[in-house]
Amino acid sequence: MNSETITLERRVLAKNEDVADHNREWLGAQGIVAVNLMSSPGAGKTTLLERTIGDLAGSRAVAVIEGDQETTLDADRIKKAGCEVVQVNTGAGCHLDAEMMHSALTSLSPAPGSLILVENVGNLVCPALFDLGERSKVVIISVTEGTDKPLKYPYMFAAADLVIINKIDLLPYVDFDVERCEGYARSVNPKVRVLTVSATTGEGMSDWYEWVAEQY
Amino acid sequence: MNSETITLERRVLAKNEDVADHNREWLGAQGIVAVNLMSSPGAGKTTLLERTIGDLAGSRAVAVIEGDQETTLDADRIKKAGCEVVQVNTGAGCHLDAEMMHSALTSLSPAPGSLILVENVGNLVCPALFDLGERSKVVIISVTEGTDKPLKYPYMFAAADLVIINKIDLLPYVDFDVERCEGYARSVNPKVRVLTVSATTGEGMSDWYEWVAEQY
Repeated sequence: MNSETITLERRVLAKNEDVADHNREWLGAQGIVAVNLMSSPGAGKTTLLERTIGDLAGSRAVAVIEGDQETTLDADRIKKAGCEVVQVNTGAGCHLDAEMMHSALTSLSPAPGSLILVENVGNLVCPALFDLGERSKVVIISVTEGTDKPLKYPYMFAAADLVIINKIDLLPYVDFDVERCEGYARSVNPKVRVLTVSATTGEGMSDWYEWVAEQY
Repeated sequence: MNSETITLERRVLAKNEDVADHNREWLGAQGIVAVNLMSSPGAGKTTLLERTIGDLAGSRAVAVIEGDQETTLDADRIKKAGCEVVQVNTGAGCHLDAEMMHSALTSLSPAPGSLILVENVGNLVCPALFDLGERSKVVIISVTEGTDKPLKYPYMFAAADLVIINKIDLLPYVDFDVERCEGYARSVNPKVRVLTVSATTGEGMSDWYEWVAEQY
């Protein structure tokens, strides 16, 4: 990258930071917790959301912000699960940013105390750079993706407050070492929490709900 | 994006195009075929490469260019498979570009007629925008990622010459519809070829080798 590109990148990120701070302040004042879910395509974000909404919506107002390059497929799934949802289509863009988060919040106008689950664009690289003003960042990886992911995509894992290892129902059929993967995640982010779940069968989901409750 | 960002993006892509054209010309003159492999993290690019090297290296000079944010884990696996390899670490970057491809080719100095397999950074979004000067672009998706991926990441699938649906050995354990996925891929790219393989068991790999031979 030449110096012009770097300068512009800094300016873009600084502007994003301002809007993110504004979002964070507004969310804090309303007692709303926003959680930013990031992963590769196909790691199971939407399935995890569907089950989470079904299990938590009775006890707390839950709303979802859906980021995708195209289509409203995920938003449609979330709506069916019985939840307020706003779709953000990024087109050729590879991540959500604070401005998109701001527009989505304006359109949702969530009740005080709500839980906002943000499903970022499926991408283990770029979303790590863009603060949305969220309370916490969660990285989801699936056991089908390979044990070494935290080492190969360290920026994403360094940014995370929580790592969820998903699809543990498939462990018998794939070559994946949960303990080693956890160790790799801690090697780039010593304090990160790690949970193992199957969003499909429900195994381990109660640990995730406990973690969510701790964010309040 | 503001107009300044768009102008700079155009300039960056135009410069990339110039270098890509130069790479393409040089590769063509040497009768070298370069194939750019793109996918989400964990779709099985490296495993596919390992098997391909084992099966093809007897009949043709094969070399690999490995793109990763960090680590030489994949390059080490490729070296073990018995192949010339150059590692390109992109740091926070999310894709390979034509300049990186040029440096890697200079360092490899492949024999005329070689096959160059490029493993791009695991990312189903950004690498689609950056021409490397390669002969063909291949997108690999795994059956664990979900049937709807071509609709949700249309830019990548529109750019592809070939889609490889990998990990078909896991079909009994996941909810994935090969025929519908193929239909979705054709809906964004009517002429794209689609193959189904398991790089782990070897099923379907001979179709992939035939496709590679057709690139010459």
